[in-house]
Amino acid sequence: MDFMINQQMLNDQSQSGALFYRENEAFSGVNKIAKKVMHDIELVFGSAPESTTDKASLSKHAVIYGTIGNSPILDELNEKQLIDLSKITGKREVFLFQVVDQPFSGVDKALVIAGSEKRATIYGLFHLSEKLGVSPLVDWSDVKPARQKSFSLSGNYHYISKEPSVKYRGFFINDEWPAFGNWSAKKFGGFNAEMYDHVFELLLRLKGNYLWPAMWSARFNDDGPGLANVELADEYGVIMGASHHEPCLRYGEEYKYLRGPDSKYGDAWNFITNREGITKFWEDGLKRTGQFENVITIGMRGEADTKIMGEDATLADNINLLRDVLQTQNKLIKENVNPNLSDVPRMLALYKEVEPFFYGDEETEGLINSEELEDVILMLCDDNHGNLRTLPTEEMRDHSGGYGMYYHFDYHGGPISYEWINSSYLPKIWEQMTMAYDFGVRDLWIVNVGDIATQEFPLSFFLDLAYDFEKWGTSAINQTDAYTKEWVEQQFAGAFNSDQQDTIYDLLTGYTRIAHKRRPEQMNVDVYHPVNYQETDQLLEEIDHLLENAEELYQAVDQEHFTAYFAQVYYPVVGNLNVQKMWLLNGKNKYAAKLNLIKANQLAEQIKACLKRDQELVEEYHTIADGKFYGMGLSEHIGFVHWNEDENKNPVLSTVLPMNKPRLSVSIDGTEHQSEGSPWHLNTLPLLDFLEPDVNQASFTISSISEQDAEYQISSDQSWLSFSSTNGVLDGKDKVTETIQVSIDRQKLAGDSEGEFFIKTPVGQVTIVVPVGKIDPAAYPKMTFIEAKGYVAIEAEHFADRHQTTNPDGTINRFEVLDGYGKTLSGLKAFPTTTHFTVGQNAPYVEYQFVVQEAGAYELELYVQSSNPVTREGTMYCGVQTNDNEVKVINALPEGYRVDGSDWGADVINNIHKQQVKISCQERLNKLRIYAVSPAFVLEKLVIYPEGKKPADSYLGPKETYYVGR
Amino acid sequence: MDFMINQQMLNDQSQSGALFYRENEAFSGVNKIAKKVMHDIELVFGSAPESTTDKASLSKHAVIYGTIGNSPILDELNEKQLIDLSKITGKREVFLFQVVDQPFSGVDKALVIAGSEKRATIYGLFHLSEKLGVSPLVDWSDVKPARQKSFSLSGNYHYISKEPSVKYRGFFINDEWPAFGNWSAKKFGGFNAEMYDHVFELLLRLKGNYLWPAMWSARFNDDGPGLANVELADEYGVIMGASHHEPCLRYGEEYKYLRGPDSKYGDAWNFITNREGITKFWEDGLKRTGQFENVITIGMRGEADTKIMGEDATLADNINLLRDVLQTQNKLIKENVNPNLSDVPRMLALYKEVEPFFYGDEETEGLINSEELEDVILMLCDDNHGNLRTLPTEEMRDHSGGYGMYYHFDYHGGPISYEWINSSYLPKIWEQMTMAYDFGVRDLWIVNVGDIATQEFPLSFFLDLAYDFEKWGTSAINQTDAYTKEWVEQQFAGAFNSDQQDTIYDLLTGYTRIAHKRRPEQMNVDVYHPVNYQETDQLLEEIDHLLENAEELYQAVDQEHFTAYFAQVYYPVVGNLNVQKMWLLNGKNKYAAKLNLIKANQLAEQIKACLKRDQELVEEYHTIADGKFYGMGLSEHIGFVHWNEDENKNPVLSTVLPMNKPRLSVSIDGTEHQSEGSPWHLNTLPLLDFLEPDVNQASFTISSISEQDAEYQISSDQSWLSFSSTNGVLDGKDKVTETIQVSIDRQKLAGDSEGEFFIKTPVGQVTIVVPVGKIDPAAYPKMTFIEAKGYVAIEAEHFADRHQTTNPDGTINRFEVLDGYGKTLSGLKAFPTTTHFTVGQNAPYVEYQFVVQEAGAYELELYVQSSNPVTREGTMYCGVQTNDNEVKVINALPEGYRVDGSDWGADVINNIHKQQVKISCQERLNKLRIYAVSPAFVLEKLVIYPEGKKPADSYLGPKETYYVGR
Repeated sequence: MDFMINQQMLNDQSQSGALFYRENEAFSGVNKIAKKVMHDIELVFGSAPESTTDKASLSKHAVIYGTIGNSPILDELNEKQLIDLSKITGKREVFLFQVVDQPFSGVDKALVIAGSEKRATIYGLFHLSEKLGVSPLVDWSDVKPARQKSFSLSGNYHYISKEPSVKYRGFFINDEWPAFGNWSAKKFGGFNAEMYDHVFELLLRLKGNYLWPAMWSARFNDDGPGLANVELADEYGVIMGASHHEPCLRYGEEYKYLRGPDSKYGDAWNFITNREGITKFWEDGLKRTGQFENVITIGMRGEADTKIMGEDATLADNINLLRDVLQTQNKLIKENVNPNLSDVPRMLALYKEVEPFFYGDEETEGLINSEELEDVILMLCDDNHGNLRTLPTEEMRDHSGGYGMYYHFDYHGGPISYEWINSSYLPKIWEQMTMAYDFGVRDLWIVNVGDIATQEFPLSFFLDLAYDFEKWGTSAINQTDAYTKEWVEQQFAGAFNSDQQDTIYDLLTGYTRIAHKRRPEQMNVDVYHPVNYQETDQLLEEIDHLLENAEELYQAVDQEHFTAYFAQVYYPVVGNLNVQKMWLLNGKNKYAAKLNLIKANQLAEQIKACLKRDQELVEEYHTIADGKFYGMGLSEHIGFVHWNEDENKNPVLSTVLPMNKPRLSVSIDGTEHQSEGSPWHLNTLPLLDFLEPDVNQASFTISSISEQDAEYQISSDQSWLSFSSTNGVLDGKDKVTETIQVSIDRQKLAGDSEGEFFIKTPVGQVTIVVPVGKIDPAAYPKMTFIEAKGYVAIEAEHFADRHQTTNPDGTINRFEVLDGYGKTLSGLKAFPTTTHFTVGQNAPYVEYQFVVQEAGAYELELYVQSSNPVTREGTMYCGVQTNDNEVKVINALPEGYRVDGSDWGADVINNIHKQQVKISCQERLNKLRIYAVSPAFVLEKLVIYPEGKKPADSYLGPKETYYVGR
Repeated sequence: MDFMINQQMLNDQSQSGALFYRENEAFSGVNKIAKKVMHDIELVFGSAPESTTDKASLSKHAVIYGTIGNSPILDELNEKQLIDLSKITGKREVFLFQVVDQPFSGVDKALVIAGSEKRATIYGLFHLSEKLGVSPLVDWSDVKPARQKSFSLSGNYHYISKEPSVKYRGFFINDEWPAFGNWSAKKFGGFNAEMYDHVFELLLRLKGNYLWPAMWSARFNDDGPGLANVELADEYGVIMGASHHEPCLRYGEEYKYLRGPDSKYGDAWNFITNREGITKFWEDGLKRTGQFENVITIGMRGEADTKIMGEDATLADNINLLRDVLQTQNKLIKENVNPNLSDVPRMLALYKEVEPFFYGDEETEGLINSEELEDVILMLCDDNHGNLRTLPTEEMRDHSGGYGMYYHFDYHGGPISYEWINSSYLPKIWEQMTMAYDFGVRDLWIVNVGDIATQEFPLSFFLDLAYDFEKWGTSAINQTDAYTKEWVEQQFAGAFNSDQQDTIYDLLTGYTRIAHKRRPEQMNVDVYHPVNYQETDQLLEEIDHLLENAEELYQAVDQEHFTAYFAQVYYPVVGNLNVQKMWLLNGKNKYAAKLNLIKANQLAEQIKACLKRDQELVEEYHTIADGKFYGMGLSEHIGFVHWNEDENKNPVLSTVLPMNKPRLSVSIDGTEHQSEGSPWHLNTLPLLDFLEPDVNQASFTISSISEQDAEYQISSDQSWLSFSSTNGVLDGKDKVTETIQVSIDRQKLAGDSEGEFFIKTPVGQVTIVVPVGKIDPAAYPKMTFIEAKGYVAIEAEHFADRHQTTNPDGTINRFEVLDGYGKTLSGLKAFPTTTHFTVGQNAPYVEYQFVVQEAGAYELELYVQSSNPVTREGTMYCGVQTNDNEVKVINALPEGYRVDGSDWGADVINNIHKQQVKISCQERLNKLRIYAVSPAFVLEKLVIYPEGKKPADSYLGPKETYYVGR
């Protein structure tokens, strides 16, 4: 017989007894969580389950939960050998989830949820919710489960959870004004326990265990009110941490609040001039909350992220001071928390200026390996934009305290903040965080989620990855799609059918992939090229398609699931894409206006509509579900001119005044080639698309310059050319633009390798020269790229061959394609991720084939994902080899590259490194090999062009060249 | 008793007899002109005079006119010794204008107008009109004379005109489409004699004698119809010429019209391959009209201003070919026009590629001094933009044929054409053309007037200068104002009172002076700096003032004088200024939009209004006086992107979308210093105006960024600072900007040398730092400039001293101030204009005094009028000396400067040369001397700043610095 929960049981509880067995001995927090799970059950079945402390009042099928050491019933069942607690005893956060028969009289079937510790029981309880189809976002985001009539588990169901892969897993509520702050103030009256109850629940349901609370203006330990926040965290088993500059259980604003001329803590955040006051401040902090579960931040920074000592202090001065600080803090912790320091989780951030203090230099020994840091988690971090900074070297990895990683989905800082809405892309999180894990960063993962809202999707992934690295980690290459699909089903199984869920998958992948090219806050009018390679038009098309889909589901979703759809899908999707669209239109608008094209004015109206849409969308977000998310959309997100939002600007609209004569502009689509046909100026334009042997259609566009009727006529002597229209009139009012498709019939080409056609315009004639490529694909091997337009552009995954090597231990060194991980197609990364390869020995390579028309000096431009080097040298090497030439080992980064430098600033916004390498090509067929050398190197694209003849500007780079077999 | 014409006489003619004595022996053209003068008399007195061939039918007071050799009555009066024809006989274009008593019975008083030749008589007749107050523009532009009751000349009135200073004086109707062409076609049906009658009349009334007719699409010798144009010119004594590439009395389009495979002239404009055909073509041209008065163009150019031989021909090849051409042409002229070549006026243009053929090089002798050019006028030219190219060296000046000058008031060519409306400035014409005369260019002056319309004002000056160089030439420094006043009176004595005439003087001077900074066709959004030094705002203020005045007179003028006022004043003034204003507003608009200032949107509306005004103005011009000027405003004149109007563009309007929070921008007027008061970014701005000891008021502007009410509050601790407002609200809708005046009370300064004030804005606070200069003017000599804002800017005329030298012949070498001849104030030019001075010997200098705070290396930037060097070396030297350092002789032009080069292209549009010189300054007081060296050097402004610290960008350069005694 199965264990069962069904509507009937729940409706009959007054008759047949309660579903949940509650022990008074249980942790209060566990009982509180059980209540939440009972509420979940109500959402699923429509009726609320009851709980009882009286075994006799239980129904035939009952849920029993408890924590080892705090649960008489578990002991009883264990004694009866109905369950085997030894399987979980002493384990970290492990729960047993088992159906047992007749645990005691009156109950036929019991679902037993037993935790190795408090959090484990909580995870086990939420495991039941999950199995019932309840999303972890049920409370946080009103994600309603599918209604069910009945739920069953087979009679011998037995599951023991795994120990989580990463020990401390959590998020950081940061930069919480204006969004999270206004939300908290309006809904809860502050950053208090009522508010944190929701945050903790979210964290725990997502299987996190660790939190850095809001700290811009908040004092977690005071705001409860009083200690209520801390106490609630303790009830729930939430381990509290604090950011890298909040040592000794003191939160950011506390010192500012307590300091003063008469304060016992003194009036200077300075360990030299106010050693006594600061020490006392720390001591009282540790005394206050040291008894709770914490990871205690140690170390010290200056106020507001500045250096601790002045600019003229030597490295040794700084190191000595920091050592002194650490010794003091360790002593305080021993005295006030636990005399056995190694039992106290502590964390030191290796961040910004602390990094040199840690490593020291040739003259000065750093803090690395010093006894003050024994058992301390060394927290590394990303560059605030999702790219890890240095990672532990092999020697460093056996540090007793292990390593942590501070990652960002939201950032308030340079070069440009992104705080409004999610713009993180799962493949990037996967690629970077799996590398962190591979490099031994396994003790603490914390991610800055800003205001939380809209970050739930990547946050789920981040915490799932941290919890179950075996499932989602390094071995799960290209599984973020699968993850996304699971996630969509988890949220929307009750709301949408499978096709609609696929659409949501497309929407989430689509908007984050576009944000991965460029985040919305970092967009401006000049990012994408308005015409070259049609990169703007193609992106606009993609965006419009996604927006339509989002709109369809908006119309389709029922009232019950509207909030969840809006908050988790519609708002982040439309919010992101509408802003992207606005800037893309702005680029087109500016470009069109420069040519006095009347369509500039239509584009201006569309931009206005986007801005209005943006405002309405935020307004709607703030209004739905009785203002549940009020405030969460308040962050500025348009037109940043500084690192923060100050002085930000809306798009400038360019409008034109019609010229006073009939005039038309003819432009070759995808290029800046443009003419009005004046006999005195450029009036012959090239249409090069047909140089690629599989292209038989191309286009050009005719645009109005005045509001007067203007006629065009197209003619050609070539019978193999045809046109979607050969004449027409643009009136400059309703019809301001016409795109003409040009087709060629290669059968009719005969001897021609070039043709031309003529467009008569009101002021003259434009001649368009049409060279036609007549490459015989059979003449070259498959995957051979054939230069046609003056360059060869290759997507990294389109290699002709790849070479792997085998290590003595049997592992394989090889390049793998990371699907979708690139600004245009995908990425190539070498595995194992931790290996520094040697060319000619263990380095794997990929080999490309391409044909150029002329032998000579060429530039190879490598497009490399904007990762940082894993070592402190600031270099990221790969090997480049053309034909039988020697392998050149080159640095894919500019000389002197460093995080926070100007090259970094540009690359992190553009989300790409581009590096040029001079290569020599022979006439016709060439081979190009790229060898893996440094870790973190991810190749996205290669562009080859004759020296000094750079292809036309663009944001994404030239469109991929034709290759045999395309 | 006086000679008299009055209304009564004219009304009584049927009784008392006719006023004019007409001889049948007279030249028909002279009698035709007499009729025009009789019509003038009708305009003045209201009744038409009559003429008679019968002495007995004359009234008591009569007008007698005739030409020596064609006039029995003159012979008779001469015999009677009533007049003395010997005084004018054989003279060039000289007339006698004399009152005689009783020339024969029945006539008491006769006004005798006797010409030494046909043209002289015509000038004499028109002299009568002028004396009656009839403008030379009476026919051309409907300029109506003041009505008079009576006119008298004293009984012994006796005047003999001068020989004109320049032999051939005329204009060139050029680039005649769309304006002049449409006008001719619509009003006259083509470029025919009916049309040319008006052009000839205009030319002759202006005392010109020489014409290059329209030639873009016209054939003067065919269009009459037939020879009617030529015959009419001959009747009137108009000497016909043709442009530099129309030899042998053939006009531009003729060959195109006559050539062909079956043509006797062949089908190639090529003296090598089609020698016979071309020779025949020339021969027939000379045969056709050689008997009329001409200046025959000789030489040959390729078609459409190209080189005559291919690019690979050597210099010697070209010279030999051109010599061959000249020999052939001279031979043809001898055979078909006059065997005595020296009696045939001929002209060769030394222009573009012909210049090197003329001069040759070290290896190859040029055509200079060759016998083929004996007695040929060598025509030099300007750079098409009003700056003379090379001028004859002293050795060259005794060339037997003398020199001519081809000047431009209108140009179709690079860098940017100007063909729409007059934009030439009298002081520049004076400065350049007097230099031409001084250098011996005295035989032929021709000016390209495009479509004539609106060029009448500078054309009058050009022809008056050519006619009477003694009155208006080199000796008449700073007399263009007087000329303008005379001209205004000549046109408008009957229309406006003296105050109104002064206003017209202001309008004409004003608009041409502004065009002298930059022509309207050459304006664009980026010319003037939108904020620096307030150059845009100050120019806008000036323009608005002029536009108001033009409008007042438009309202005031009566119907009779409306046409003349509109065509001669209102249209050119408003046309010019409205376009200038539009671009200035566009610059402000673009700048404001970049800062998201709401006022950008108001500016956009103003720009739209300007464009509409422009269109309406042209429309009105085409409509008034029954379409008298129809077509004359058709030339494009806005937004040139090429040398010609093709693909020109209207201003792009930038508009902003209001930000969604109350925000204000604070900017220091005249600078780019701007802040919103954000605590994270620049929020302290300097207000430096009070560093100048005579400045006690300055301003800053607060502007709206959103449409929400935004409040500002101003406060200061300094009692010596006061504000026109200390708080207020901008609503972002009606009130989008507020300018606050800041005043200082220097009495209250006490010890302060700096203060500050604070502007509270919605996002924070802007601090404005106010340093105050406390220079004691008494500490320095008068005219000492005192650096305050990091630079010293000096208007050239503000020297402290000047030094002159005396030549052995008693002439003085000295700098003279040319009033108003500068982009900002005036110019300094050395006289005599032909002298190459030697520093330390005869070079005059001016000396400036200035104070800088620190000793060290400085840059001296010289602003020099955009003249070209007079020699072929491409250099223009001056001497620079600071304190007691050596004089550095420096080239005021960049290395390799040449007309048509890129430096030239920029300078001719900007109408300035700027040259930097490194100088060394001592602390406090410095002397700077500028020595004259090369001719053509005109100094406008000097800017001195520490090396590497260039003052803020601007078009006109930094505002002049304070000097002692300002």
